Amino acid sequence: MHHNEPAIVSVTDLPITEAKWVTLKKIQWKDQEGKDRVWEMAERTTRGSSGIDAVDIFPILRSKSKDFPPSTIIVEQFRPPMGAFTVELPAGLIDDGETAEEAAIRELKEETGYETESVIESSPLLASDPGMSSANMKLVTLDVPFDESAGSPKQRLDEGEHVVKRVIALSELQPELRVYEKRGFIVDGRLAHLAAGWAMASKFSSSD
Amino acid sequence: MHHNEPAIVSVTDLPITEAKWVTLKKIQWKDQEGKDRVWEMAERTTRGSSGIDAVDIFPILRSKSKDFPPSTIIVEQFRPPMGAFTVELPAGLIDDGETAEEAAIRELKEETGYETESVIESSPLLASDPGMSSANMKLVTLDVPFDESAGSPKQRLDEGEHVVKRVIALSELQPELRVYEKRGFIVDGRLAHLAAGWAMASKFSSSD
Repeated sequence: MHHNEPAIVSVTDLPITEAKWVTLKKIQWKDQEGKDRVWEMAERTTRGSSGIDAVDIFPILRSKSKDFPPSTIIVEQFRPPMGAFTVELPAGLIDDGETAEEAAIRELKEETGYETESVIESSPLLASDPGMSSANMKLVTLDVPFDESAGSPKQRLDEGEHVVKRVIALSELQPELRVYEKRGFIVDGRLAHLAAGWAMASKFSSSD
Repeated sequence: MHHNEPAIVSVTDLPITEAKWVTLKKIQWKDQEGKDRVWEMAERTTRGSSGIDAVDIFPILRSKSKDFPPSTIIVEQFRPPMGAFTVELPAGLIDDGETAEEAAIRELKEETGYETESVIESSPLLASDPGMSSANMKLVTLDVPFDESAGSPKQRLDEGEHVVKRVIALSELQPELRVYEKRGFIVDGRLAHLAAGWAMASKFSSSD
């Protein structure tokens, strides 16, 4: 198979009558003073029976080896809306009839090859970008057994899907996002917030 | 002033020719195999000269009092795209001619009344929801001096803007987001990821 750098060819206006995956909506609402107001938003057209668009996965890799630090998995992929490669947590849209937790387990296996059924926690319903869109999601934290001697498990990607996975120690996550920035990647906001939370907690713990 | 519960009156299709704040774009791109592909996205129309749409603020409140735990500020507001009240980090759009850090300092003062000029760190450029939109942002962490005896500083909200601020210990953040869920709030995804990062770091630190 021939591999090239992906590239944007053109970006053009998309009338809502031609769009399949996203649309625009005008919201008429009454504010706290009873005043009529208007808000514009984008909306996904693909939400299934779960009522939740997407799932973000926070895999916690733990090994029997004491030398292996608590780690996670990040993924690199080309994202046309950013016109660039991004680094993100594993994630995906929830299929119709699937729960957020089932989607997280499935997507982790597809994007990274790692298998688990152990959910550490499932977040409340989350807004993805509540000033701009109705998109919603859950964050599912998974406990992933990790065997350093086993080698990296094979991904199950769809045809045409290119996702590079990477295991990284959580203590190295935030500094590594700066390295990605220097390499021209765009960092996913949710991943950066998770890394900031981890880094600041570690900073405050060590200064006590 | 008369205060009511805000409410959605109607949600209708919004043609791109009538939209002022958001629009839809069709991206033609070539993938890694040189194949022509199409992606649909939403885009903000308001990006200024900074090239960055928005800023999320992670205020770290620290007091001279040893009894005061490391804390942050969260904000509650009605978000028409979610048809619900949300809980989020303080945030805002970046004005034309403003840097992300200047916007963070300004928005923190407007939404919470707290004043600081001390930037702990400013994140790389972040994608807000890179599968769906071109929206981008930065996360700016601010060091905020906190004096428990001083009382809560006055917000500087725009007319018609209703934002409730709340100081919360970072150790209580993640459990408190569950309480918000039970009260019918939608939690912002970035706030939840930050809380998950903090909570998991604390869990691993204490188990060492």
